[in-house]
Amino acid sequence: MDKQAISALAGRVMERLFVEMEASGRHVHLTEGQIMALFGHSLTPVKPLSQPGQYAAKERLTLVGPKGELQNVAVLGPARKEGQVELSLTDARTLGLTVPVRQSGDVQDSPGITLVGPLGRVILERGAIAAQRHIHLPPADAARFGVKDKQVVKLQTFTARPLVFDDVVVRVSPDFAPRVHLDYDEANACGFTPGDFGRIIP
Amino acid sequence: MDKQAISALAGRVMERLFVEMEASGRHVHLTEGQIMALFGHSLTPVKPLSQPGQYAAKERLTLVGPKGELQNVAVLGPARKEGQVELSLTDARTLGLTVPVRQSGDVQDSPGITLVGPLGRVILERGAIAAQRHIHLPPADAARFGVKDKQVVKLQTFTARPLVFDDVVVRVSPDFAPRVHLDYDEANACGFTPGDFGRIIP
Repeated sequence: MDKQAISALAGRVMERLFVEMEASGRHVHLTEGQIMALFGHSLTPVKPLSQPGQYAAKERLTLVGPKGELQNVAVLGPARKEGQVELSLTDARTLGLTVPVRQSGDVQDSPGITLVGPLGRVILERGAIAAQRHIHLPPADAARFGVKDKQVVKLQTFTARPLVFDDVVVRVSPDFAPRVHLDYDEANACGFTPGDFGRIIP
Repeated sequence: MDKQAISALAGRVMERLFVEMEASGRHVHLTEGQIMALFGHSLTPVKPLSQPGQYAAKERLTLVGPKGELQNVAVLGPARKEGQVELSLTDARTLGLTVPVRQSGDVQDSPGITLVGPLGRVILERGAIAAQRHIHLPPADAARFGVKDKQVVKLQTFTARPLVFDDVVVRVSPDFAPRVHLDYDEANACGFTPGDFGRIIP
């Protein structure tokens, strides 16, 4: 085999044993109505994300909390049924919010936050959370790793500052690409750089 | 035994099995000369730290990097032989610096940074680091946990987002109080709140 073939094979072996990791920065999900109120037009996709169908939009927002604001915050598409803001605990401290650690979409009793766009301002009554660290897996990968949807596992990181995360939620769907999602606090705590992998410990 | 005695006993048992954790925010160590150049007078101690003899000063600094600045940054005393700035990787990103993860005092080949005080400006040619997570132990505690100075251990956190940190350096000295020191990235990644404990895994 030539070098390129060996490298490709090594990549496929890695993907069978480990899961690629990604760091998610702070971002916002919006409803169609909120998108119109903030921008006056639909979102403009500029970058596909690793999860099929998901994208980063050209449009950006300012988040305003009781103690501070964060500018130029990413908006992800497509539109959802309820607006949601995913922050690191560092971001939450900057804004002056105490946010629960939750899975995406679970915004019950989470604090509100103000969104400012070029066209207007939207006050979310709730929706500011820290995303619980999680692993997206398609069913075949989940079966191979011996894990199920909603199972809580450990994840050993092969990173510059290695550690074993506990309390990592597995999410299984045929729509998913295999990826570990961390926030920037977690990514920095383990010294993550793009392309790093982790090992699931069921 | 009354409730107070039981609580005190429980506290002593905890301390024999676990080590109390602390989160260190970004901070600066300075030489006598740098202190004079920045403030025109010696540091004013305002808050003793957990490590005997160490204190937070009343004086505060602004850090300036290639891409941003951080204001109102803590200065710790007493003065040292060389200036040093301890940042989280989040802080380093804000400033536009790439900093190595090092033990305090190990500043070789680390990037420089500019310090701005009320009286002047000091340019450190080197000294910006992310502090490697570490555990201060007095010799009796180190012996009880079966660990030695400079040993690298794991630390299991009993926190809101539990995990096991790898690559935690043990530092042993009769001058130390037993404490785990994390930066804010690490503290947030494990959901630390003051009073939390960790377990050393040698």
